[in-house]
Amino acid sequence: MGCGFCEWYVETGMTSVHFHDGKVEVRDIRRPKRPRGYALIRLDLAGICSTDIQLLKGYYGFEGIPGHEFAGTVVEADSERLLGRRVVGDINLACGNCSFCARGMRNHCPKRKVLGIVNHPGVFQEYFTLPEVNLHVVPTDIPLTEAVFCEPLAAARRILDQVQIPATDTVAILGDGKLGLLIAQVLKAESRNVTLFGRNPNKLALARRWGIPARRRQRGEFDCVVEVTGSPEGLAAAVSLTKPRGNLILKSTMHSGVGFDTAPIVVNELNITGSRCGDPGKALKLLKSGVIRTAPMIAATYALSDAPKAIEHAQQKGVLKILLSNQI
Amino acid sequence: MGCGFCEWYVETGMTSVHFHDGKVEVRDIRRPKRPRGYALIRLDLAGICSTDIQLLKGYYGFEGIPGHEFAGTVVEADSERLLGRRVVGDINLACGNCSFCARGMRNHCPKRKVLGIVNHPGVFQEYFTLPEVNLHVVPTDIPLTEAVFCEPLAAARRILDQVQIPATDTVAILGDGKLGLLIAQVLKAESRNVTLFGRNPNKLALARRWGIPARRRQRGEFDCVVEVTGSPEGLAAAVSLTKPRGNLILKSTMHSGVGFDTAPIVVNELNITGSRCGDPGKALKLLKSGVIRTAPMIAATYALSDAPKAIEHAQQKGVLKILLSNQI
Repeated sequence: MGCGFCEWYVETGMTSVHFHDGKVEVRDIRRPKRPRGYALIRLDLAGICSTDIQLLKGYYGFEGIPGHEFAGTVVEADSERLLGRRVVGDINLACGNCSFCARGMRNHCPKRKVLGIVNHPGVFQEYFTLPEVNLHVVPTDIPLTEAVFCEPLAAARRILDQVQIPATDTVAILGDGKLGLLIAQVLKAESRNVTLFGRNPNKLALARRWGIPARRRQRGEFDCVVEVTGSPEGLAAAVSLTKPRGNLILKSTMHSGVGFDTAPIVVNELNITGSRCGDPGKALKLLKSGVIRTAPMIAATYALSDAPKAIEHAQQKGVLKILLSNQI
Repeated sequence: MGCGFCEWYVETGMTSVHFHDGKVEVRDIRRPKRPRGYALIRLDLAGICSTDIQLLKGYYGFEGIPGHEFAGTVVEADSERLLGRRVVGDINLACGNCSFCARGMRNHCPKRKVLGIVNHPGVFQEYFTLPEVNLHVVPTDIPLTEAVFCEPLAAARRILDQVQIPATDTVAILGDGKLGLLIAQVLKAESRNVTLFGRNPNKLALARRWGIPARRRQRGEFDCVVEVTGSPEGLAAAVSLTKPRGNLILKSTMHSGVGFDTAPIVVNELNITGSRCGDPGKALKLLKSGVIRTAPMIAATYALSDAPKAIEHAQQKGVLKILLSNQI
């Protein structure tokens, strides 16, 4: 109660997860009220993302209900076509009126709210709201356990919208975390010549089972390097792996001051592209095509009310995706 | 003598400038021998670049004869068309046989030598050599005092080969040093909407006289930002000036560990392009068109034998281009 989002909630009680003062709290609050143009969505499955852990640790000064990876069912909406449908959604709530929105850059709207991250309560609760324009209906043949990966998968395949990677290019993915494994699968599905570099033997073995060469030691030169280590040393390592005039795609947000030498970027005339959210609709298509394996990426599923335990589990080193279920 | 380059030199004595143990020394050495395919060039004018100062301070472990900005006259060559002609030249000596050279990326040849920087003696001497393929004949109507700017001007206009800047884009140049002023002139000549940010009132006033808006305080958001401050804080400032999905062109090589937050690059999906050397032929065309002002950028000209004094002058804060002349 009293976390600043409570004006959204009315009457019926429900379970919700709050980040407050660096702690995870489960609270019974009122069900959110649906503004016009918004859908009220019952959570089915949610995923815990590294960003959630960063929010818990105090980045962005976040307080409130986190969660932005979800699959849910629409229980109230303006559009009848959405009622009762299973949905995933774009996490950026754009204003729709600014010059960025006018140019189709809704994800960069300066007034945007972001589900479970900036000024809009997240999905770690039984019911939550999102604008109907943000929603994508999940085809019936995609199970919830796959649909819940839509948001990170969209972020993984965002790279394909930004950088043209010729089929003959060699690609290195630096970092064997959850996002790294998804990116490796996406690029492998695009028949790109991918090598995954990481430190976790189990994850590297997983990638190898998928036919993706995976190595511990970072060596060689690549036309394209994706930096997704999440560690301050990752950027320098990625720079040193990239061929002159090659592409370096930056996925990791590193807040601590990174000790960093810019000379190789200039001397080798590298092209660095920051890469964030992608299109959940395109991610759904990828899932439908059956080329992405999500089941082996799920480490455990907890009931929503067990969120504190689940989030503790998610913080353990090397753990893959932890899910929160509103169905158990 | 005995600096590692001396096997190049034969018979006739001449003045040369050496960087040795962090000091500038003027030495009388033998005139260099011209290998086949190379021209022997008599120096007319040389420019002192910030890179030379970095070499003096010990970056890259440099010892020997520096200097890579020059205008000279060919005194010996295989090709008759070059004999007696005034020339400028590409500073990268490529192997001509590797996969980079085959793809026209001679400036990124991994075996390249670099005039006055890597494994090839520089131009701070009465005579020096360069491969004939590197040379560009200077049209007779371009004075030496302009031709000597070819190398930095080529580096300035390199940006135009790398990044498409729409005419409607707003461009910020961060850094009012010598290269910053040249970049400002190049982009202004291309009718781009340029603002120069710097700290030196005289240089800002110079830019204003050229019709380039110049400001002290870095403020606003730009579609394209060129980082050429040479300072560790420059990169973070440049990132904060760049609009979402904007272009940031990186010219400064910063060796010290830069405390750096990568989050805004990822969140705003910036595109960062490292930018180094350009085509001296294209720089000559720019000079011929008369749109680049070099005279006001010359702070002083010293005799080659006064190099220690000249290099001391070049290290003073806010000083523009210092030239070394082999004609006085």
